[in-house]
Amino acid sequence: MPKVAIAGAGLVGALNACYFAQRGWDVEVYEYRRDIRTMEHVPGRSINLALSQRGKCALEAVGLKEYIVEQGVELHARLVHNVDGKTFSRQPYGQPGEHIVSINRRHLNEVMISQAEKGKNVKFFFEHKVRSVDLEKKEMTVVFVKEVEIVVKADLVIACDGAYSAVRRSLSTQPRFDYSQEYIDHGYVELNILPKNGDYALEPNVFHLWPRGHFTLIALANIDKTFTVTIFAPFSEFEKKMSTPKDVEAFFRKNFPDAFELLGRDHLLETFRRVRPQSLISIKCQPHNFGDFVLLAGDAAHAMVPFYGQGMNCGFEDCLVLNETLDAYSDDIPKALSAYSENRVKDTHTIIDLAMYNYEELKDLVNRPSYKLRKKFDLFLNRLFPKTWIPLYSMITFTRIPYHEVVENRKWQDKLLCKLQFSFIAAVTVATVAGLYGARRRGFL
Amino acid sequence: MPKVAIAGAGLVGALNACYFAQRGWDVEVYEYRRDIRTMEHVPGRSINLALSQRGKCALEAVGLKEYIVEQGVELHARLVHNVDGKTFSRQPYGQPGEHIVSINRRHLNEVMISQAEKGKNVKFFFEHKVRSVDLEKKEMTVVFVKEVEIVVKADLVIACDGAYSAVRRSLSTQPRFDYSQEYIDHGYVELNILPKNGDYALEPNVFHLWPRGHFTLIALANIDKTFTVTIFAPFSEFEKKMSTPKDVEAFFRKNFPDAFELLGRDHLLETFRRVRPQSLISIKCQPHNFGDFVLLAGDAAHAMVPFYGQGMNCGFEDCLVLNETLDAYSDDIPKALSAYSENRVKDTHTIIDLAMYNYEELKDLVNRPSYKLRKKFDLFLNRLFPKTWIPLYSMITFTRIPYHEVVENRKWQDKLLCKLQFSFIAAVTVATVAGLYGARRRGFL
Repeated sequence: MPKVAIAGAGLVGALNACYFAQRGWDVEVYEYRRDIRTMEHVPGRSINLALSQRGKCALEAVGLKEYIVEQGVELHARLVHNVDGKTFSRQPYGQPGEHIVSINRRHLNEVMISQAEKGKNVKFFFEHKVRSVDLEKKEMTVVFVKEVEIVVKADLVIACDGAYSAVRRSLSTQPRFDYSQEYIDHGYVELNILPKNGDYALEPNVFHLWPRGHFTLIALANIDKTFTVTIFAPFSEFEKKMSTPKDVEAFFRKNFPDAFELLGRDHLLETFRRVRPQSLISIKCQPHNFGDFVLLAGDAAHAMVPFYGQGMNCGFEDCLVLNETLDAYSDDIPKALSAYSENRVKDTHTIIDLAMYNYEELKDLVNRPSYKLRKKFDLFLNRLFPKTWIPLYSMITFTRIPYHEVVENRKWQDKLLCKLQFSFIAAVTVATVAGLYGARRRGFL
Repeated sequence: MPKVAIAGAGLVGALNACYFAQRGWDVEVYEYRRDIRTMEHVPGRSINLALSQRGKCALEAVGLKEYIVEQGVELHARLVHNVDGKTFSRQPYGQPGEHIVSINRRHLNEVMISQAEKGKNVKFFFEHKVRSVDLEKKEMTVVFVKEVEIVVKADLVIACDGAYSAVRRSLSTQPRFDYSQEYIDHGYVELNILPKNGDYALEPNVFHLWPRGHFTLIALANIDKTFTVTIFAPFSEFEKKMSTPKDVEAFFRKNFPDAFELLGRDHLLETFRRVRPQSLISIKCQPHNFGDFVLLAGDAAHAMVPFYGQGMNCGFEDCLVLNETLDAYSDDIPKALSAYSENRVKDTHTIIDLAMYNYEELKDLVNRPSYKLRKKFDLFLNRLFPKTWIPLYSMITFTRIPYHEVVENRKWQDKLLCKLQFSFIAAVTVATVAGLYGARRRGFL
C-alpha cells in the first residue's frame, strides 16, 4: 500500500487522515502543535464555524456527519440587528428546513483526530514541525523539538499546514507556480456572550448580524449556550475609534447598544486590552500539486476571507474530491494529482472571489432594499422551480454543485432577469408610445 | 555612520552599493555566486539589456553613465521583419536623437562592482548566501560555503536578491504583506548571431523584431558585433512545434527565414538540444519595506516580463529614488522607508502592468494598422507640442515622469482623442444630415 505523509493535523489534515485510513494507505500526520486533545479547555473561549452541505457530505463519507451535526446548533436565518438595539429584520437562508450548523472548532478537530487514529496504519506525530519538501528525492523534512531533523519518505505528501504552509513556501520557487496573497483592510477581534439565567442570551438558531457600513458585528451560538461574537472593522477604524477603553465603550454603546449590554463592559474592555485585531488573508495559487509528489489542500491551497462561511467546507470538500479522484484513477498518484488540480483550482478560485464579494455584501448590502428584494424574489422562484432556480447562496451552501458551475448558473439567472426587465421596459414603452400615438391621433399633443 | 547590508551583488545590488558608498555609510554586500569578475568569459554568449532614461539618470548620479553608454549600441527604431524574410517596416522609438542603448549585462555588473569597491567603507562577500532576516533582532543570517552560518547586524537591509529573493521569502508571512507571482504562458530561448565578414550581420542600430502572432523573435546588437537573439513562444508551442531538430529547423525556416540563415542551422539545433525554454515571472508586492529594517529593491520587489525593456531601468531608478528619499528625510531610516514604499509601490505596479500589456502588443499589435496609425499620430502631435503631448512609450523610455503619472497622462490623451473622434463623427453627421435636408429641399429624395 502507498504511504501518505500529511503536514498538519488541523481540520483538513485530520479529515484527510480519516479518508486515507479508509483507503487502507499507510498514513503519517506531522503537526507542530501539541495534541489538541491534551490541551486545557478555557471556558467561554470557543471559536465556532458554520458547517454547510459540502462539509457535511465530506464528513458523511467517513461516518462522522451525524455525530458532529448533533453537537452543533442549527442556524436557519440571518437576524439583522438595527442600530436602535430594539428592532430586527429576519432573512431566511433558504427554504424551510434548510440551515447551516454552528459547530465548535476544537471539538470537531478532536473528534476527527480520534476517528483517524482508529485506523491501524495511521500515526500522528505531534510537536513535529514540517520544514520543507524535496521533490527530487521525494522527501519531507520535519523538525522535532527544535533540534532533531527527521527525513520522511512517502509516496505522497498532502500539505494541510494552513495559510502560512511551510510546504508551500519551501516550493514557492518551483517553475510555473502562480501564487498570490492579499490582506484586506479589515481586521477582527473575537468576543463572547455568556449564558443569561442559564439560557442563551440571544435567540440561538439564527446568525446574528449588526451591519454598520464598513464595520460589522456577528454572533454564532455554541451548544454550551454561549455565543462567539466577532467584530470586523478596518484597522484604521480600530486605531481611530477603539484604541482607549473609553473609546471602545463609546463605540459599542453607540453602534451595538444591545450587544454591548450582553457582552458586558468588563469583558469587552479586558478583551480589547489583551488582544490586537487579527488580519485576514486571501490566498490563491495554481496548480495545487507539485509534480507527482505534493498536493496542497485546505488553507494551504486557498485561504479565503470568512464572509461566505465556506473556508472549512471547501477544505473538507477538498478531501472528498481527492478521494473521488483517487477512486477514478485507481490510486494512480501522478494522474490523480494533476486531474485533481485541473478540476479544483477553478472551483477554489471561484469561492475565494465570492467570499471577497460577500465581504462587501455583509458590510452593507444586506440593508439595501434592492438586495432584499432579489433575495425574496430568488426564494419565490426557487419555491416555484425548485430544481431550476436555486439562489446563489443556496447553491453554495446547500448543494455540492461545483463552485464554478454555481457562478455560471448565477450568470444565466442574471441574464434571464435582465431580459425580463428589458421585456417589461419594452412593454411599458410600447404601451406608452401607442398611448402617445393614440393621443396624437386624438389631437392631444 | 549607519550600516547597510545589501543582499545580492547583481545589477541593482551593485548600484545600491555605489549609492551608499557615496552617502558615506558602511556597506556590506552578500552575494551567493562567485565574483563575476573572476569567472570565465564565453564568447558569443552575452546577454544584453536596453538602457533607457531612468537607468541613465540612476547611473549618472554615481558617475557611470558616460562610460556605460559608450560601451553600448544605440537603438533608434524597431525594425519589423516580415515573414517573407525580405521586407521590413521601420518604427522610430521617438523623435530624431531619442534612442535606447543595448548594453552587455555582465560588463555592466562588473563595472558597477568595481566602482562600489572604490569606496573605503564598502565590502563585498561573495559565495555568501543570504538565508533570512530577523526583524525583531535586526539581524540577517548568511550562509558561507554551505556550512558556516554568519549573523550580520546592520541598521538597514536592502534585498536586491532577485525575483526569488530569500529575504522576501523569509518574511513572506509578515502580517499585511500582499504578494503575487504569476507565470505567463510564454517561455524563451536565447540564441546568437555571429559577425559576418567581421561586421554586424544585421543593421546594428535598431531593435529587430519578427512578430508572428503568439510567438516572436527579437535581436539586439552587442559591441562585439554579435547579436543576442531571443525567441518567445508559449510552452505548448515549444512542445508541439520545436521538440525535434527537424521541427525546429522547419519552424524557423518557415517563420523566420532571414533569421534562420544568419543564426545557422548548427547553432540553432545545438542550442535547442542543450537548453530548455525558460519561464517568465511577474511579481508584485506591497509594501516594499518591512518595518524600519528591510527594503526590497529591483526584481525582489517587482519582477516584470521583459516586454517593455524596463526591468533593469526600474531597478536602477529604485536606487535613485531611495537616494532622493534618504536625502529628503536626512537619513531617518524609518521615515524614509515608509515614504519610499508609499511612493514606489504604485509606480512599480504600473510598469509591471504596462510590461504585461506590451506582451500583447509585441505579440501582434505592432503589425496592426490602427496601432501604427496611433504611433505616427502620437509622434506627429509630439512634434507640434513637445512638452504637452508625449507618447506613452516615450514617457516611459525617455523621461523620468513617475510611471503612474505616465498612465494618467495617457488616459488624458485617450480621452481627448476620443472627444476629437466624437467631434469628427458629429461634424460628419451634421454635414450629412444638412446635406440630406438640403437634398430633400431640392427634391432629390
